[in-house]
Amino acid sequence: MSELRYCPIKHLWTIIAPERKQRPDEFWHGRDRAPAALGPDPLAAGNEALTPPTIFAIPAAGDGGGWQVRVFANPFPALRVEGEVAREAVGLNDTVAGVGAHEVIVETPRSDAELADLTIDEVAMVLHAWRARLLDLRRDVRLRYSLIFKDKGREAGASLRHAHSQLIATPIIPTTIVQELNAARSHFRHRERCLFCDVIRQELRLGERVCLETERFVALAPFAATSPFETWILPKEHRHDFGLAADDELRALAVILRDLLRRLRVLLDDPPFNLVLHTAPNPHPRPGRPEFWTTIEYDFHWHLEIVPRVHRPAGFEWGAGCSLNPTPPEEAARFLHEADPEAG
Amino acid sequence: MSELRYCPIKHLWTIIAPERKQRPDEFWHGRDRAPAALGPDPLAAGNEALTPPTIFAIPAAGDGGGWQVRVFANPFPALRVEGEVAREAVGLNDTVAGVGAHEVIVETPRSDAELADLTIDEVAMVLHAWRARLLDLRRDVRLRYSLIFKDKGREAGASLRHAHSQLIATPIIPTTIVQELNAARSHFRHRERCLFCDVIRQELRLGERVCLETERFVALAPFAATSPFETWILPKEHRHDFGLAADDELRALAVILRDLLRRLRVLLDDPPFNLVLHTAPNPHPRPGRPEFWTTIEYDFHWHLEIVPRVHRPAGFEWGAGCSLNPTPPEEAARFLHEADPEAG
Repeated sequence: MSELRYCPIKHLWTIIAPERKQRPDEFWHGRDRAPAALGPDPLAAGNEALTPPTIFAIPAAGDGGGWQVRVFANPFPALRVEGEVAREAVGLNDTVAGVGAHEVIVETPRSDAELADLTIDEVAMVLHAWRARLLDLRRDVRLRYSLIFKDKGREAGASLRHAHSQLIATPIIPTTIVQELNAARSHFRHRERCLFCDVIRQELRLGERVCLETERFVALAPFAATSPFETWILPKEHRHDFGLAADDELRALAVILRDLLRRLRVLLDDPPFNLVLHTAPNPHPRPGRPEFWTTIEYDFHWHLEIVPRVHRPAGFEWGAGCSLNPTPPEEAARFLHEADPEAG
Repeated sequence: MSELRYCPIKHLWTIIAPERKQRPDEFWHGRDRAPAALGPDPLAAGNEALTPPTIFAIPAAGDGGGWQVRVFANPFPALRVEGEVAREAVGLNDTVAGVGAHEVIVETPRSDAELADLTIDEVAMVLHAWRARLLDLRRDVRLRYSLIFKDKGREAGASLRHAHSQLIATPIIPTTIVQELNAARSHFRHRERCLFCDVIRQELRLGERVCLETERFVALAPFAATSPFETWILPKEHRHDFGLAADDELRALAVILRDLLRRLRVLLDDPPFNLVLHTAPNPHPRPGRPEFWTTIEYDFHWHLEIVPRVHRPAGFEWGAGCSLNPTPPEEAARFLHEADPEAG
């Protein structure tokens, strides 16, 4: 069983997940292997028996049967659903049992399509699946957060080629989210305005870091982008919880997301990328940190963060916790703004 | 000129370093290139004219002339020495001019030797060079920190094969160090004991995460190791500042460091790795954060952190700020303890 451990020096959580070392490419092999192209695609339609049972599915359009989006439990989970969230300390060391969930969201039944290749309706169905899994896992009061993310390409950590995203639900709120919650709450306390809304207003006024803008969404190159072509997509109106997004919002998000992914593909020669959804934690206030929920409806703002993996972090970045980005975000925004999403 | 930018949402610094995009492998090419094996080794003895002038050198032993360790300014610097540390804000966005230093420390005149291949005296000379550059750059009161690190192997971010380490001096204290300083100061305030000394005592008593122990140093697999075979080397006696290390301490460090690097090489098939020195910030207290220096002699403890890059972080780890480590540190410590440093 895996375990969450808290470092008394770094004040960071790590999931020690010995079960995952069964993946041969992840246990003490420094070298990359060739992508596993052998055998059938386990995520394709018709091969469902090669993966664990379906947890959730969106049926395919039309009368042909089958599914458009399918969710199953990761067979090499970082965290498992069974068990108590046991917390304990031994000396300086704190642990939490590795209770959680780890799901795979198959974005299309086709082996040969990327997320960027799908129709707007199909992309919207993926976002519907994200929302549905988020809301379902929220009913489990042991879990504090569901992080939805997508790894595309081997350099971004993907072990399968077939288009998919993942969800990891944790009994802690992830550090990155805690930091954003703290920054947002502190900003709100002094100004009674949402930090993200302030950033959006400022960036729309300045214009130089706006990659794309639609009626309801904006795609920005963040001012202190940690990596070339890092882009955030935010709803222009204040929205704290992706779980509450309406169908028409998800459709509008599908439009700008697909457009951005196509532009990145054209500009960066089909780059590997990571995509992460940042949204409010599960609405179960806890005794340890009740302040996270006091003004969350007003102070937090959900958004997607997309980082093409075209720059390899090295010792300085890891050691300093300070990124080195050779591409000014103003330049990245201009390139993205001018790119033709239909080229290539 | 590069610029340090502070993210109002993440509360993290990024160095926007457009000059570094002159390195062709770092500007919007997602794919790895073959290692540059063409042309002469610019770091080898005799090829000094291919690199910027020598800043510092340790002469070779014997009467043959030449150098054993050589330091020069990185020709693709993240930060430059010239200029004022101008700080300004535009709306929510904070910047600091990219003033600093970026140096390359060539660890041996030989093209075919790794740090682990050198004699103990030669490894000690590398550590002497680190100490000398740290102390020299400390005289520049614009600089708050010198981060010394080593990237070995392409997967760890190295762009050259020849054995070398680097130093980046910054006008800020890096976030990772700030977090450790805060944790150490808070621990000391309540207990009047060094956090690191407490960790060392606990780990030596438990034994299960001790990789190596010598009279003066210990190599530990940290309890919440973020990555397989992450190892820290710490002086067993309390020492806050690597700049104050005596020659005999550096020699003792050379012994355990070389032993550890050889064991990692045998166990993990010559893995890529990053190594970072964590030491106290430059002793120039600043108006903004005077508390960092009030008890630094008592609360901080220098150490080396070594992380083999045998596990590729993916979207979850980046998005959550929570590492996923498939190798329990107790297991890594046992393997390292039992490995034969002279094998392979």
